[in-house]
This record gives sequence, C-alpha cells and structure tokens, in this order.
Amino acid sequence: MSSPSRRDLLRGVGIAGVSLAAGAGLSEAITSRRGDHVGASRVSFRGVHQSGITTPAPDYLSLIAFDLDVESATDIRDLLNAWSAVVADLVAGRPVGPEQSPSLSPRDTGEALELGASSLTVTIGYGPSLFERPDTSHLPRPRHLAPLPTFVGDNLDNRLGGGDVVFQICSQDAQVNFHAVHSLERLAQGLAHLRYWHRGFGRTSAVGGKQESTRNLLGFKDGTNNLQSHHVDALADVVWVRDGREPSWLQHGTYLIHRKIRTFIETWSAQSLDTQEATIGRFRASGAPLTGKHEHDPPDLNAVDQYGNYVIPTSAHIRSAAPSSNHGMRILRRGFSYADGIDSHSGQFDAGLHFICFQQNPLAQFAAIQQTLSQNDALMNYLTHLSSTVAACPRGLAAHEGWGDQLFA
Amino acid sequence: MSSPSRRDLLRGVGIAGVSLAAGAGLSEAITSRRGDHVGASRVSFRGVHQSGITTPAPDYLSLIAFDLDVESATDIRDLLNAWSAVVADLVAGRPVGPEQSPSLSPRDTGEALELGASSLTVTIGYGPSLFERPDTSHLPRPRHLAPLPTFVGDNLDNRLGGGDVVFQICSQDAQVNFHAVHSLERLAQGLAHLRYWHRGFGRTSAVGGKQESTRNLLGFKDGTNNLQSHHVDALADVVWVRDGREPSWLQHGTYLIHRKIRTFIETWSAQSLDTQEATIGRFRASGAPLTGKHEHDPPDLNAVDQYGNYVIPTSAHIRSAAPSSNHGMRILRRGFSYADGIDSHSGQFDAGLHFICFQQNPLAQFAAIQQTLSQNDALMNYLTHLSSTVAACPRGLAAHEGWGDQLFA
Repeated sequence: MSSPSRRDLLRGVGIAGVSLAAGAGLSEAITSRRGDHVGASRVSFRGVHQSGITTPAPDYLSLIAFDLDVESATDIRDLLNAWSAVVADLVAGRPVGPEQSPSLSPRDTGEALELGASSLTVTIGYGPSLFERPDTSHLPRPRHLAPLPTFVGDNLDNRLGGGDVVFQICSQDAQVNFHAVHSLERLAQGLAHLRYWHRGFGRTSAVGGKQESTRNLLGFKDGTNNLQSHHVDALADVVWVRDGREPSWLQHGTYLIHRKIRTFIETWSAQSLDTQEATIGRFRASGAPLTGKHEHDPPDLNAVDQYGNYVIPTSAHIRSAAPSSNHGMRILRRGFSYADGIDSHSGQFDAGLHFICFQQNPLAQFAAIQQTLSQNDALMNYLTHLSSTVAACPRGLAAHEGWGDQLFA
Repeated sequence: MSSPSRRDLLRGVGIAGVSLAAGAGLSEAITSRRGDHVGASRVSFRGVHQSGITTPAPDYLSLIAFDLDVESATDIRDLLNAWSAVVADLVAGRPVGPEQSPSLSPRDTGEALELGASSLTVTIGYGPSLFERPDTSHLPRPRHLAPLPTFVGDNLDNRLGGGDVVFQICSQDAQVNFHAVHSLERLAQGLAHLRYWHRGFGRTSAVGGKQESTRNLLGFKDGTNNLQSHHVDALADVVWVRDGREPSWLQHGTYLIHRKIRTFIETWSAQSLDTQEATIGRFRASGAPLTGKHEHDPPDLNAVDQYGNYVIPTSAHIRSAAPSSNHGMRILRRGFSYADGIDSHSGQFDAGLHFICFQQNPLAQFAAIQQTLSQNDALMNYLTHLSSTVAACPRGLAAHEGWGDQLFA
C-alpha cells in the first residue's frame, strides 16, 4: 500500500531523463524533480492500516492537533467525515473540490497546484481528551489512551502536546505539506482550532525496507536498529492493535506517541569524537556499533576490553534503548529533525528531534523504554523533552468510509 | 558559474535511472534523490560575482545575521577569512576539515556527511552597523548602505532585521542548509553571535532561465515577470554595482534587501476567486495577466472593458509593481515562503514570504517601488512587513582570496 505505481515512477523519471539527455542545466533538474517524479509519487489512502506508519518516511513532517469547538456527536462526526474526504483528494494530488463559482472563495487554496501528491500521507489519531466530552463519553474508549507519566529530563509545555485530534502529515515537498495543513484548518473553521503545529525535516529513521539510515542533527546515523516495513511479523507483535477488548475501529490501528526533544547542539558539538561515540555506542563515520565494523553489525553488549570494561559503555544510548535492556520491548520509530531558529533566552539553536513512534501499548512499550533511558542514558545530558502527545490511530478506512462514520459506528 | 558540471548531473541521474529500471520502489527513489543527483549538484564559489544571486533558486533558504563581539580589525578580518575558507568546503560538499584527533571535538559536525553539496550557496553581505565600529570606520563605506525608510504597512521588529554580517544560505536539502548555519555559527564562537535565523522553502521567483514559476502561499504564481539569469544586459543595469565611487570590493557586487512579510492567509483564502484575481491582476490557474491567456503574456495596463474600466484594476498588485509605474525601476527578486507555526496571539498562521531582492541602489530601486506599493497595492490589505535588512554584498572571491582580505584590502 505504500508504493507509488510503477507507471508513475517510470513516467516521472522518464521526463527527467529526457530533459537531461537534452543537456539541461540545474534549473530543469530541479523543476523536473518537483513537478515530475517527486510530485507523481502517491501513497494509497485506504486499506487495512493507515498510511504514514510503515510508509517510507519522506523529507517533511507537520504534526498538528486540533481542539474541538463543537460539542454534538453529529457535528464531530461530520467534521471527521469532511476531513477524510478532503484528505482523499490531497493524497491523490487532486485539488480540493469541486470547483465553484469565482464569486465564492475557491475550495482549493491553490498553493500546491501542479505539485502533485509528493508522497503525501495524512495519519489521524485521537487524543484522550476527545473521549472526555459529554457527547463522546459513551464511545468505547481505547484501553491504553492516557497521558504518559513524567520522566526525568521532561520539561513539558502543555500547549505543545495533547489535543483532541492529531494529524501526522508527511510529504516529499514542503509546500504540499503546508497545503495539507491549510486545507485541514480551513475545513475546521468555527468547528475546531489548531492547538499546535510542529514542523520537521530529514527523517531520522529508516522505515522502508531499502531506505538508508540518515543522520540526526547530532551528526550520527539514527534508527539503524529500527523495525522495517517488511518485518511483517514483528510489526504485528509491536505496532498493530489486535486485542478484542479494544474498540473495533482500533483493530489494525496503533498508538502514536510524539515527543518534541530539544538537543543541545552547541554543547554536543563541543565534545570530543571519543566522548560522542561513547555516548551513543556507535562510530560516527560508519554508524557501526563500537563492537563492530559495519552499520548493521549487531551490537555486542557483553564485549569487554582488555581491562574488563564494557566496549559499549554502561551509559551508552544504544545499550539503554536495546530490547534486551527493556524486557524485549520494541517500538516502531519515525523521527524527523527540527530547526525552529534561535532560543531567545539562551541565544542557542532551538533545534532537535520530533520523536514519533508507534506501538500497541504506550505504557508497556514506549514508557518502559523511556524510563530506562531517563535513568541510564548518557545522551540525556544533551537533550530535554519539550512536549508529549499520545493518540489512538484507527485502522485504515474502507472504500467510501469516513473517519466520523468509522469512529461513531 | 551557477551550473553544476554536466558530468555531475549525468552521473546522478544515471544512478537514479538504473535503480528505477530495476523496479525499485519509493524508498530508493527518495534515497537516490537525496544522495545522488540532488546531492551532486554543486555551485561554484569563486568568480566575478557571488553565487546565490543569479543562481537558480533551490528549495531551502536560511537567512541569518551575526553581530560581532570582537572589535579589532585583525579579529574581524580573521573571522571573515575563516568563514570564507569553511564556505569553500561546504559548497563543494566536502566535510569541514582537516580531520583531527578523536580526543578533540570534530571540525565537521557531521549531520550532512553523505548528503553532498545539494546546490548549496552561501552569499555574504555587510550591514550598515559593520562600518560604524571604531576599527572599521576607516573603511570606505558603500554609498547606499543605510536602513530603509519606513513604509505604510511596516510593523518591524528590529531583532528580526539588520546585523553586522548577513548570510543568505540556499540549498536543495534542508539538512545541508542546517549544517551550513551550524558550521558558520561554530566558527564564530566567542567572536560573534547569531542575531536571527529566518528559514524559508519553495522559492517563489524563477531566477534561472528555464525555471518554472512556482506559487506563493496565496496560491498565485509569483515572480513571472522577474529578471532571469540570462538577461545579462539587464542584470548589469539593475543588479551589479559598477560605480567608481563605490568601494573596490563592491564593484561587481550588489545590495541585498530582505523583508519578512507575513501574509494573512486565512483572510486571503476567504476572498472570492474574483477578488483574489483582481487584487493580483492575474488569473490564478494560468498565471496569465487579466488581459492575456498565457502566463508570460505581457500585461496590458491600458486595456479597458466595455464600460471604460481598466481590466487590470488601478489597485492591482502587478500594476503597482510594474516598471512603468515606477519610472522604469526594476529589481532582481529571489523569494521563499515561510511557515513558522501558529501566531500565539491570533491563533492564525504565522506564514508568508521571505522577500529578497538585489539591486544597485536600494533607495532608488526597492524603496521607490515599495513606496508605490504601500500607497496603491490592494495586496497590502493582506500582509504586513515584519523585518527589514539591507546589506552590501561584495564581488565574488578570486582564487585563494578570503572575505576578510577582500574587505580590508
């Protein structure tokens, strides 16, 4: 479900190939990249699972949340249905429609015309507060939908997390991403308002089977040991909800966690390479564990040097994060870097990581791992968590189904 | 000087072509885009003119400024020379070097390893305040380097504009852009501090000869009537300084203006298509002037309808901005959109345009046009200017020359 059609890819690259064979310069290469093979990449919207979870992560992220201003179940249902109808247009690269008279405001706001779908995915999740309203409290509530406990190192701003309805919006083009945010917000006018809007770039975790690991803003390859989209059995054990006690709309769905994590980049960059590598437990250049030579060599957490010290230090990040340090618990990560400018208080970069992960049970999986990290991980010296969001993501939509009908079924 | 080598482009696309012919999916297409043909695009750093001015605009912008903390001419000269040496590495896609012992902090911060040059350009400019220090006041001062007058519609925050040294950083990859900012900031530690960091995306003006116009966040094609890099004679008349009374380092240089312009996107999107098109003076879908059919048809500002009214209204943006409304004055535009989240006061989008332009004389060119716009342009109802920066951009560097040696020669 996560691949564009062969024909789209071939057509896009075919055009790029023709223009370059004709001796075109940089400008045409950029144009064709935007207009053709990137633009033409479409991700299916409907299916068993929502897209944007095991879909290969593209370059741009918006993570937004709305708080509802309407109360009645009918109004909430209608808004959710309207959102899914518009998302079906957006992810197909179609203008929001139908067109109407020029004496009215256009339904499509226009900024992404000609840019195509650009691998856009829009993934919806419901926050705990959605189920605490008079007209929604009768709905079956997801069993594990609750705010996370507080961890050492948390410095949370409530306004940057939570929300009734959360959207993870990923795309290969930043303007397509903006257009999706804009279109969702427009439909919500008078019905719901944006609570926050986080923006990220440069995925930091490989998710697709053949994606290479990329580097985070600390300069290290990230997500090397992440689950991959072809690990179907592991995903069924880790990510997809299959628990008869959960609401039916959550079967084949999952729980999303988002943490905005600021990294103290200036402090980190001032550390020696030795210190950086001991903190992570990997070599910076290759991404290999300190006990290996290649990025994907499995770390040997028991290896000791000639003095009997662990080669991967007890405080190394990869030791604390390893399943073997967390009773085998795993999560599916999907992170993006962020750079929001300069912190006005310190004059330092306001930059770091939008950590996103998916799991069956936030408390048993993410919170257990985060508890280990907050107590043992040397990397905690270089970061602080600024926000926390938990949301229950429904299964994918069937043909002609809307998010409102699915939730209120 | 602004084109990557043929070989780089062909090599990059060749690799992409092979992986797609082998039936690769989305993940490989993205990987090859990041790692290969985008990464391999390099823009020459040295030459008669600086790069980043007539260079085709890529997708990402940082516009940053430093205020100097050192006073002596020697320290300023050394810092400027250190910056140009590092930029020479960055724009070539080389790690900042040389490598040193792992017991020291690495010279290259690592986050852009493997990403290549990605069409990176770093363009330097000097603000008025640079020439008002005890140790720089003896330098010949650019004749037209002064803050701009205040215009109707200005709502300027002094902290978001100005600065001693300004850098315009453009690249095709957001992480490469971050790395350049990070590398410049690192070299400045203890010597200068960042005053602001603006981030933009999705160029809104075509500059390269074959770039297509893109749309701004108001949904309209922007920059249709801009100067192009192949208009060599016009650029000589409009952009490049050639005035014997100017400092020698400014011959073949130019003046940069930056204005952060917030657009009231929700208000704009609520207008009818008719109102939007009358405000701009162009059709939204095609970009054609209201007197034409195709984007590049020249606007007929004198055309009247059957009732004797101008087809392009008197208040239309393209009328106020036209050279014929401004004594023939022109500028070279190079704009990028921005989206900085939600304004905490109004709850509306904090988004709009990083307007950048280049000219021989800011007061005679940009300010004259802006004066006309601020008095006549209906688009002024939908925007406000948040910052203002003027900087003098030196000519390009010769081989082995540094920015400090050039300025203090």
